[in-house]
Amino acid sequence: MGEPHHDGSALYVSDQRPELGSRVTLWLRAPLAAGVTAVHVRAVHDGEPRYFEAAVDRGRRASGYGESDVWWRAEITAVNPVTPYRFLLHTTGGQRWLSAAGLAAHDLTDAGDFRLVCHQAPPEWLSDAIVYQIFPDRFDRSRPMRDVPDWALPRDWDRDPVIPSGPGTSQQFYGGDLDGVTRRIDHIQSLGADTVYLTPIFPARSNHRYNASTFEHVDPLLGGDEALHRLSGALHARGMRLLGDITTNHTGDTHEWFTAAVSDVNAPEREMFYFDPVTGDYESWWGFKTLPKLNWGSERVRAGMTAVLKKWLGPFDGWRVDVANMTGRRAADDYAHEVAALLRAELGPDAAFIAEHNHDATGDLDRDGWQGTMNYGGFTRPVWTWLRGPECDLETFLGVPGGVPLRDGTAMLAAYRSFAAQMSWRSLVHSWQLLDSHDTPRVRTVTGSRERQLLAVGLQATLPGTPMVFAGSEYGLTGVNGEHSRTPMPWDRPADQDLETLAGYRELLGLRRAEPALRHGGLRWLHADADCLVFARETYEESIVVAVRRAPGEPLTLGTHATGLHNAEDGDVIPGEGPSLRMWRLKR
Amino acid sequence: MGEPHHDGSALYVSDQRPELGSRVTLWLRAPLAAGVTAVHVRAVHDGEPRYFEAAVDRGRRASGYGESDVWWRAEITAVNPVTPYRFLLHTTGGQRWLSAAGLAAHDLTDAGDFRLVCHQAPPEWLSDAIVYQIFPDRFDRSRPMRDVPDWALPRDWDRDPVIPSGPGTSQQFYGGDLDGVTRRIDHIQSLGADTVYLTPIFPARSNHRYNASTFEHVDPLLGGDEALHRLSGALHARGMRLLGDITTNHTGDTHEWFTAAVSDVNAPEREMFYFDPVTGDYESWWGFKTLPKLNWGSERVRAGMTAVLKKWLGPFDGWRVDVANMTGRRAADDYAHEVAALLRAELGPDAAFIAEHNHDATGDLDRDGWQGTMNYGGFTRPVWTWLRGPECDLETFLGVPGGVPLRDGTAMLAAYRSFAAQMSWRSLVHSWQLLDSHDTPRVRTVTGSRERQLLAVGLQATLPGTPMVFAGSEYGLTGVNGEHSRTPMPWDRPADQDLETLAGYRELLGLRRAEPALRHGGLRWLHADADCLVFARETYEESIVVAVRRAPGEPLTLGTHATGLHNAEDGDVIPGEGPSLRMWRLKR
Repeated sequence: MGEPHHDGSALYVSDQRPELGSRVTLWLRAPLAAGVTAVHVRAVHDGEPRYFEAAVDRGRRASGYGESDVWWRAEITAVNPVTPYRFLLHTTGGQRWLSAAGLAAHDLTDAGDFRLVCHQAPPEWLSDAIVYQIFPDRFDRSRPMRDVPDWALPRDWDRDPVIPSGPGTSQQFYGGDLDGVTRRIDHIQSLGADTVYLTPIFPARSNHRYNASTFEHVDPLLGGDEALHRLSGALHARGMRLLGDITTNHTGDTHEWFTAAVSDVNAPEREMFYFDPVTGDYESWWGFKTLPKLNWGSERVRAGMTAVLKKWLGPFDGWRVDVANMTGRRAADDYAHEVAALLRAELGPDAAFIAEHNHDATGDLDRDGWQGTMNYGGFTRPVWTWLRGPECDLETFLGVPGGVPLRDGTAMLAAYRSFAAQMSWRSLVHSWQLLDSHDTPRVRTVTGSRERQLLAVGLQATLPGTPMVFAGSEYGLTGVNGEHSRTPMPWDRPADQDLETLAGYRELLGLRRAEPALRHGGLRWLHADADCLVFARETYEESIVVAVRRAPGEPLTLGTHATGLHNAEDGDVIPGEGPSLRMWRLKR
Repeated sequence: MGEPHHDGSALYVSDQRPELGSRVTLWLRAPLAAGVTAVHVRAVHDGEPRYFEAAVDRGRRASGYGESDVWWRAEITAVNPVTPYRFLLHTTGGQRWLSAAGLAAHDLTDAGDFRLVCHQAPPEWLSDAIVYQIFPDRFDRSRPMRDVPDWALPRDWDRDPVIPSGPGTSQQFYGGDLDGVTRRIDHIQSLGADTVYLTPIFPARSNHRYNASTFEHVDPLLGGDEALHRLSGALHARGMRLLGDITTNHTGDTHEWFTAAVSDVNAPEREMFYFDPVTGDYESWWGFKTLPKLNWGSERVRAGMTAVLKKWLGPFDGWRVDVANMTGRRAADDYAHEVAALLRAELGPDAAFIAEHNHDATGDLDRDGWQGTMNYGGFTRPVWTWLRGPECDLETFLGVPGGVPLRDGTAMLAAYRSFAAQMSWRSLVHSWQLLDSHDTPRVRTVTGSRERQLLAVGLQATLPGTPMVFAGSEYGLTGVNGEHSRTPMPWDRPADQDLETLAGYRELLGLRRAEPALRHGGLRWLHADADCLVFARETYEESIVVAVRRAPGEPLTLGTHATGLHNAEDGDVIPGEGPSLRMWRLKR
């Protein structure tokens, strides 16, 4: 698109972990053709905009960036924990604003401004992570099923299909355990993943364990505390990480806090939940009485949950937070940001802390709490709409009535940008870029083909954000909803293993591991049409151009002027074949 | 534009003052041509979206809205203090979202959602108000100048031109007083204004009085407390209102709080300001040492300012808050929302409470504090860019480097919508729709002609939002910056009175007074091109179509289908003459 560009990556912002008062250098890159004659940075200080003049940085231009771009440089101060800024471009065609929302020829609110964030940065390891999600009951088991609990409906791992809805859904029990995970680390690592995220492992009266009975020990059905320590030790020995899953919004109705609260109106635990003083009824998640909602107005909840989250640091390197979007919110109560910041601070600088949020987390990020979100809104949905298969007939679109719509690449990009523009670069790159999860249909079911699934994996592996793979999708498993997608892994069902899909995951995620620009580079969109998206991931040292086509089309010549890539001979013509995914590495 | 439409007005939302838990009926109006086959409302409850099906409301259609529109109805609950909602339209052309940001064919964040607000509503009278702003030193004086204070540079009312910048700017003293205002109420009322807003009236060592020495009494130079009571009494006797101007961000350096603080490091007042513990230096507004910044972390500031704001309720019916955007914000401190909510609650339900904010207040509205903003960002700037004159060569654009840009009607509308979409309807209609103020160039200087100034006044009088007129602009006075615009009123300078401009203000603001649809109607944009904007303001009873042309063009046929106005014979052809402003009232 050949537009002036800036983003929050190290190519454009000198300090990725500024502190309050830090001076930070910003760069803006403008094609000569944009006719930029002067540039101001507008930064909001203590609630009021200030303007700072930028100057041409001839050094940058000299160092391999070619003659087609002019680099502008300015310094600003990180005055507030979040300092919003944007650029005012004076051009031969009039004034333009450049913000994270893109280039605009009219005035607009600050919501899409770039953000310089001084809150405690996420741990360094997290920005290189590739996450592998495991639903413990369905991953592998280290021994034959014994000890079937009274609530459970035992199922045969390879013969009994998953019940997708209705009675038995939460009771069907396949008996996966944590030692089963430990013995599969080679597989996980072979994908390029270095971080394992386990859905809940506390005892509960369901296969999903989101209705915990206690947070004090690991479910014996999973092997107990010792099995968790074995898994964690084995991962850590390889330099890998392990994340837990915590329900901050609710507990199970068999949880010790709740049973104490429900049995005695004078119990100190009573304040931890929302009881109706008259009827004795209590608030619960979506009205499910097995999931009583925690009241974060209670100091006892704050102290109790803080202790739980800290207790498991060691085996766990951080947490994925269930229903983070509702945590601390009920009617007039809204403790959400306060709670996230409290827990983040208690966890300290080395722990990961990622929020589940199924629609729009942008209002909850950059507030010293969640370091990122499961980016269903800003990644999963846009990609699904672009790559859904012709046969896809799911009932909803991740909860939105009406199935998965089919949309053009331009609409995909507009949706992607709508979300990316309203969070900091830091929050974007630490958010989980996922194609599916234990709560969704499988990406294979959405895309309907290996070819389109691997295009989606290509986007997941090359866009900013932390790739998260839901175990089993690398084998091309299918599923029409979250429950249905919790297929027991097909270790012993070769017919269910699509080995070409597996090879595709290994290759694409392996590229991400190998190429620093794919993990830490800036993101410049070069082209979007109905069937083709082209972008560059760029560091100071190199540019990687990624071109994804969902269908054949005319060959596309981007041209040096449009790309700003002066040695882009290989990268400036995108062949017409499709579906296809191509990448070029351009050294400076 | 003939698009499906909803806004927060009473035509589309059954309850304009909902309380927590209220059931509220929403209507959506869709032209038949939009091919809408089903509609869901998406409302966010406790942080999570819920979907509610809408049904066709045949009653609405029967009652005069014509055959070209289908009305959909749904009920939602006001679950939270602010409940965001939008519409999911299933159409023959695919899914569309309708939010306050408009119609979108891709997913987008919640930032532009409609908002159902349960916070304490602004006083009823405020939604009918037309505000007249007076800078007391320059409005009128009831007696010859005496008592020239030691800091002042006395100036002759009619002979000495205002010093626009440099030495003497804040010291030039014309000696206006409050009894001077009282004797001009007829003039104010003749414009249709019913609310007088006075810039500060507390003693201070400057003509603008934003550096107050005390908040305890009215400046004797203005006539003291008694003159304020006389003015207030005279206005109240006519059913009019009076608003004050309070500096919550800072005091003057001669203020009794500050002099106590600065003279003794152990004074209890020390905590009220930001003193550097080492150097003894203190934080001030934009570095002006005469304006020490208040520290809202101090309980003493909270109690002190609360007492001040309440003390003057009686003569004042509310406050305009100076530098509201910076109030309570400094480095890591951000008490802004907390402070606004605290003071609003202390003022009670009958007081107006409007925030100055010169760039983007949207992040600070709908938080139970400010009821609206001085809408420079969402009204003044968009109108200026569309109606600036060819000779306008101001140095900045309300602080933005580079002068006032000339932009098309489409860009004006995009800017207008960018701001309107990110506040509730309630905040929009209670924000001040101003063309200039004591802090800006005069609208006449920006537009360069009577004709274009009156087009701007036409927009001010017909769009939602509270019109605010800066005294003197009704005579066509000019000014190149805020200081320069503080011209002494030309009561005795007939040559400076443009009586046709005055007649235009009276007519246009009079129309607003006369037509409920202009004050309380919804807003539907019907057309925008470079030179022409057309919109309808609508209640259940009538539609008023407003067409503004800044230049001649081709006659424009909107057509019944586009307008949804079934008896729009008079209103669906916009003649080509321009500049022009036309209005049609269509009864149902």
